Amino acid sequence: MKILILSLMALSSLTVSAQFGAPRVNPTVPSVKADVEDFKPATTNQDNKQYPMVNSQRMVRAQIMAPKATFVGLDIDGKIYEMTKDENGLWTGTSAPQDEGFHYYQLNIDGASVPDPGSKYFYGASRWGSGIDVPAADEEFYTVKNVPQGSVNEVYYWSTVTEKMRHGYIYLPAEYYSNPTKKFPVLYLQHGMGENETGWSAQGKTGIIMDNLIAAGKAVPFIIFMDNGLDVRRPGDPAPGQGGFGGPRPQGQRPGAPGQNGQRRGGFGGFGGFNAFQEVLIKDIIPMVEKNYRVIADAQHRGMAGLSMGGMQTHTITLANPTTFAYVGMFSGGSFNVDEVKENPDFQKTNKVLFMSAGGRETGMAEGDRSVVKAAENLKAMGINAHSYISPATAHEWQTWRRSLYQFAQLIFK
Amino acid sequence: MKILILSLMALSSLTVSAQFGAPRVNPTVPSVKADVEDFKPATTNQDNKQYPMVNSQRMVRAQIMAPKATFVGLDIDGKIYEMTKDENGLWTGTSAPQDEGFHYYQLNIDGASVPDPGSKYFYGASRWGSGIDVPAADEEFYTVKNVPQGSVNEVYYWSTVTEKMRHGYIYLPAEYYSNPTKKFPVLYLQHGMGENETGWSAQGKTGIIMDNLIAAGKAVPFIIFMDNGLDVRRPGDPAPGQGGFGGPRPQGQRPGAPGQNGQRRGGFGGFGGFNAFQEVLIKDIIPMVEKNYRVIADAQHRGMAGLSMGGMQTHTITLANPTTFAYVGMFSGGSFNVDEVKENPDFQKTNKVLFMSAGGRETGMAEGDRSVVKAAENLKAMGINAHSYISPATAHEWQTWRRSLYQFAQLIFK
Repeated sequence: MKILILSLMALSSLTVSAQFGAPRVNPTVPSVKADVEDFKPATTNQDNKQYPMVNSQRMVRAQIMAPKATFVGLDIDGKIYEMTKDENGLWTGTSAPQDEGFHYYQLNIDGASVPDPGSKYFYGASRWGSGIDVPAADEEFYTVKNVPQGSVNEVYYWSTVTEKMRHGYIYLPAEYYSNPTKKFPVLYLQHGMGENETGWSAQGKTGIIMDNLIAAGKAVPFIIFMDNGLDVRRPGDPAPGQGGFGGPRPQGQRPGAPGQNGQRRGGFGGFGGFNAFQEVLIKDIIPMVEKNYRVIADAQHRGMAGLSMGGMQTHTITLANPTTFAYVGMFSGGSFNVDEVKENPDFQKTNKVLFMSAGGRETGMAEGDRSVVKAAENLKAMGINAHSYISPATAHEWQTWRRSLYQFAQLIFK
Repeated sequence: MKILILSLMALSSLTVSAQFGAPRVNPTVPSVKADVEDFKPATTNQDNKQYPMVNSQRMVRAQIMAPKATFVGLDIDGKIYEMTKDENGLWTGTSAPQDEGFHYYQLNIDGASVPDPGSKYFYGASRWGSGIDVPAADEEFYTVKNVPQGSVNEVYYWSTVTEKMRHGYIYLPAEYYSNPTKKFPVLYLQHGMGENETGWSAQGKTGIIMDNLIAAGKAVPFIIFMDNGLDVRRPGDPAPGQGGFGGPRPQGQRPGAPGQNGQRRGGFGGFGGFNAFQEVLIKDIIPMVEKNYRVIADAQHRGMAGLSMGGMQTHTITLANPTTFAYVGMFSGGSFNVDEVKENPDFQKTNKVLFMSAGGRETGMAEGDRSVVKAAENLKAMGINAHSYISPATAHEWQTWRRSLYQFAQLIFK
């Protein structure tokens, strides 16, 4: 358990710092060659906003009017790119090339870290803030198309565990509406550290990916429930900031910034978080979904998956509830090992697919990602239907997880 | 028609300028008495964020770390309240008392208008940005409760009119799920100028209001479809910024800022907007809803309502399609007059409820709101089942429209 905690901390501070932690000011705005002056508004921009832009080299260019400011920076990928001011007070700056896919970012105006008024906002790195989608060669699979549409539905429900109303999202495939007597399998799909129940549909594009896969006949129609795996405080659990996840932090401190009591300040102590979420999932979420929706309520039609911390929750919860889930996915969350599966005959008997993935540019816990390939080979050798997937040239970010869902969804409930 | 256009312009610039247009710096931070130092984090804050706060006098207090800034202001209700800096670079400032309910606001940091990193973000005044909910005496009706829950569902659909995929939200009542053979009436519910299809569920709290009303037996269960009434450009329509709604605007200009070619710059020309939305509603939205959902597809089980510009769209569209909608609601959008109803026997024959509302503090188009009372009296005298409602002590903002929906929903489909 100690090892798991340390690993999660390592992964988490790596993740967060890669996005926001202690960025250093990069005084050199990369010089952009004339032939890459092909910047276009990002797809994640607010309607009719021209900036931020991305070019064919995957450089991000931000712009903001701040006539009285003395410093404005574009804060992305752990660096702050200094922007320059024109005679009207309009600041412009360009980043180095970014990986394909989605990235959190923000602007720094005279020391204040604020969302860019040009972008839409996403929840991650423990805050609602700016995000940008950098075009990817394979973006078709998460592009809205004129195919039969399911829907992502906002759901409130009562939790007997936390004794509060909770909030999640459910994806219902198009056939849920068109075929009103059919019952469907369900995947429980969890976000990562510093994220919440909105991540999989907003950044992850779950509904779009699923509609496209189902329309192409590559996935069977199934339901997905996406909940909050961090906001699970039970009566009697320590208050936020006292060892739980995601406690309040003093104004002006970056979410997840390392140093300055980073670990102590409402950090990652209290792995009660996993137990509490397990309890909410098993006692509240699954019964609620199986009561309110047309669901095939058995292990062979029930799956769990998650990214990063959500993958670790999947790991812990599916091993601890071995007859509950037949389909298991762990995206950038480490891997299952042979011993723990060997010691768990119920898990072996129930499991139909065990999927582990990572980004090709991940380091740290996923060990440059090859660990999931090796783990899948070992598990396969002992008779588990194990699969691994490496997302090309992406790090511990959403493009890895969009692709992981796309792969995993094609394997399950078949 | 000319009169309508001018009225909408007046209303719209009034609305927007009350929120964002040409705010003047208010150098006096109101002195706050010791007995009102009871500030609490707003319910619209990001999880675990302490600021902004609101006190029992409905004053808003913002705070942000901006060590190198020379000016930080809290921009709310058409004023900028100058904030003050402490020795650590933490800025704090407090507004005058605000009306009950929801308000858009933003921060100004050295001349840059940016979202407050403490708040959640909402779409209005033509931008995603900060919003704050000021507690109201009647907030129970839009507070999440442990009652049977419907859901607000995100829907994409193909539009034959705009030849693009479109995006809306559908509220399905709890009974839609629990009673899988029952068919339901549908209300088509539209947002105002500078807003979009997210407004009614996020700021308007439609799903929560409806679940509470239905659980209390005060409203019959019905479906609500909420779409985008501005983003309706058809092939061949002028490009955004060329007379349509919501064209792009130069960076650094406030949305809807008056002056500087305010009307010409992607302003309110091209009332093609209403025709285009009517076409989308009649040809795309209603057929899609009636095909994909369990709906009673006749006029007696179909309603349309909207706020401000959405109310005017309701006015225009229900008169132009008099046998399509039996229930009509116009919130802060002016009123129907006797003559136009007299000249429209089909409308008279079909209509079952005609509801008009306004905020008690509205000025301009709603004429201090009394016009809707008078209009309802006149329409009643000619045999129309007309109703009016004045929201106490609120202006042209969401508290007026939450209350209007709450009232209207109790009258319809009965």
